[in-house]
Amino acid sequence: MDLTNILQQIEFIKEIDKLKYIQRKTRLFNSDRNENDAEHSWHLAVMAIVLAGHSNVPVDILKVVKMVLIHDIVEIDAGDTFIYDTQKNHTNTDDERLAANRIFGMLPPEQASDLIAVWEEFEAGETAEARFARAMDRLEPLLQNSSNGGGTWKEFGVKYEKVYEKKKVIREGSDSLWAYAEALINESVEKGILEK
Amino acid sequence: MDLTNILQQIEFIKEIDKLKYIQRKTRLFNSDRNENDAEHSWHLAVMAIVLAGHSNVPVDILKVVKMVLIHDIVEIDAGDTFIYDTQKNHTNTDDERLAANRIFGMLPPEQASDLIAVWEEFEAGETAEARFARAMDRLEPLLQNSSNGGGTWKEFGVKYEKVYEKKKVIREGSDSLWAYAEALINESVEKGILEK
Repeated sequence: MDLTNILQQIEFIKEIDKLKYIQRKTRLFNSDRNENDAEHSWHLAVMAIVLAGHSNVPVDILKVVKMVLIHDIVEIDAGDTFIYDTQKNHTNTDDERLAANRIFGMLPPEQASDLIAVWEEFEAGETAEARFARAMDRLEPLLQNSSNGGGTWKEFGVKYEKVYEKKKVIREGSDSLWAYAEALINESVEKGILEK
Repeated sequence: MDLTNILQQIEFIKEIDKLKYIQRKTRLFNSDRNENDAEHSWHLAVMAIVLAGHSNVPVDILKVVKMVLIHDIVEIDAGDTFIYDTQKNHTNTDDERLAANRIFGMLPPEQASDLIAVWEEFEAGETAEARFARAMDRLEPLLQNSSNGGGTWKEFGVKYEKVYEKKKVIREGSDSLWAYAEALINESVEKGILEK
């Protein structure tokens, strides 16, 4: 392995430090401190490892973990888009594609192509790995909001139908996690922390 | 997969949110904001994926990624110990073992045993995977301190010999990364940000 590779990889490693400054709308569990993208990505990776057995079909768990670790890196350039924002498309914007090319493109060419492909697979959401990774990405804020007396649902006036619509993507990755998530959504309505 | 498993796993997922509050001594790149353990663990996981090709021997990269994702979870109970603290042993304290049993023990028994074993393997540092994972754990703060005009070296008066001694563990995981790291340590001395 030559030194050029190491130098490019180190520059990438320094660059992605910026993910720690990208604030999400959701907050930590039982907290009013906003979560940042690096913390969020770490949490999804551990969730994927712990919950892998619930996937509807066997998945390459290393692929899933890679996906969730890198899925938000494009937000260093493109910023976080709130999932319930009706003005902007949440995913696959031109800005995100440019960001993927710039940031992953700092790596040696073969690695850059590999990570861009992993990111695109996550975004497309069509493979078993992408479906399970996306289920993690939807489940974490559901757990946070339900632990925070409604969290961003209350803060931004998001109602049951919209939450249900966005969260049912979990089912594509895992029927059993969806059963849990659906019960949690219904319980949130009963508790009065999610408006129907 | 029965509901009991899911409920135990979700309780674990909520509990480890606390890692986001554990502050490390080191600071983000070009920054004076302290890094927290969740951000640190995320960064090591991406580093492990990107730098895997530099391992002295082929490694099970999923195992390495698991190690770095969970290696600091015990600090939720035991707290962060500064690597250059001369009063306390950095690793394998009784507190950390109790913490591992309590926190991983929230999971279904088989998963708990699996993650405790992964954590113990990391701590022992004897397998190829543990050596590479530990190399990541030593490399990240070196990159941070050298980008921060000396960072914790200056702040706590840590000198060249001590830094060299702690960092040479990188060599056990990767000769090529150690060559890079050694050059960076020497360059830090020349720049006057690390005292000899």
